[in-house]
Amino acid sequence: MKRTLGPSEKLYPMPVPLIVGMADGAVDVLAAAWVGTVCGAPPTIAVGLRKVRRTLEFIEASGELTINIPTAAMAAVVDYCGTVSGRTTDKFAATGLTLLPGETVRTPIIQECPYNMECRVASALDVGEYRVLLVEVVGTRADEAVLTADGKLVDVGKLDPLVYIPGTREYRGLGPKVADAYSIGRSIG
Amino acid sequence: MKRTLGPSEKLYPMPVPLIVGMADGAVDVLAAAWVGTVCGAPPTIAVGLRKVRRTLEFIEASGELTINIPTAAMAAVVDYCGTVSGRTTDKFAATGLTLLPGETVRTPIIQECPYNMECRVASALDVGEYRVLLVEVVGTRADEAVLTADGKLVDVGKLDPLVYIPGTREYRGLGPKVADAYSIGRSIG
Repeated sequence: MKRTLGPSEKLYPMPVPLIVGMADGAVDVLAAAWVGTVCGAPPTIAVGLRKVRRTLEFIEASGELTINIPTAAMAAVVDYCGTVSGRTTDKFAATGLTLLPGETVRTPIIQECPYNMECRVASALDVGEYRVLLVEVVGTRADEAVLTADGKLVDVGKLDPLVYIPGTREYRGLGPKVADAYSIGRSIG
Repeated sequence: MKRTLGPSEKLYPMPVPLIVGMADGAVDVLAAAWVGTVCGAPPTIAVGLRKVRRTLEFIEASGELTINIPTAAMAAVVDYCGTVSGRTTDKFAATGLTLLPGETVRTPIIQECPYNMECRVASALDVGEYRVLLVEVVGTRADEAVLTADGKLVDVGKLDPLVYIPGTREYRGLGPKVADAYSIGRSIG
């Protein structure tokens, strides 16, 4: 039996990356779950941020950002970055997160996140109180420790990415593999 | 040590909903991982679809779609819906998926998916070979069996949503809860 729950933005599951912006030598970081891939060529991600965010100011000033995937073990740091403002707190000093220079953008990546995406803003539009950015991913990096044996792909079991669940407001880890994509569907039809 | 992997749209983790479009009495379904929430008010989701998709034709003709969250047990059905075309195959006949009428849109939802979002297209733009839709969620429904005890929220442990992992192309389930959001971060600073 279906129950009606009303309009909602909740989607299952959600990623919860740390997003870095830098302008005029100042850098800030936030955690955001409203992030999703929308295109493969060029590689493009949609990011929704409340307009009041200080990191957004930096992103719009520089036209750049980095998207950094945290591990499940980083839940406390991510939660902190998502719930305090860089206007009143130095989140890097508080969390111990450290930065590495970008390779394709001037904005740094977060060293402690094992997978990092360097991005440039391609377009932006306003939706309600949110700024929706479409950002092109111009480079990615990963810790060697989270790669597959051939070094070409991320081994998600090693990456152990943090997952966000809206509504009940939980952080979760990933569960075991249930099937190979582009393969298991052949059992049908 | 970080290794450079080049530009990529891969994000971890990704949802992998079944998306339904209907026009002129014809209905089709596809599986898409390029879906992400971008705004809470109005509740808005970004969806990236290749322009050749038949379901996209229906969505653009009607201005509506439904986004249906499958369980981990539905991996084969989802994979099938993501890899064959409705131009040559009746995906509903092949998979046994059944439809329920929409409550707020004319487009139906998928009964077997325990969480369903009814949406209207708010805007659209082209990015490369993809059409990026920003869609407003005008209604959601869930199976009573996947709700929390108070009936107000989805209990994600009961929902058991399917998760997509790009690159290694895996379907996974969710793992255990690691922390409460808007709470664990208070242990810092």
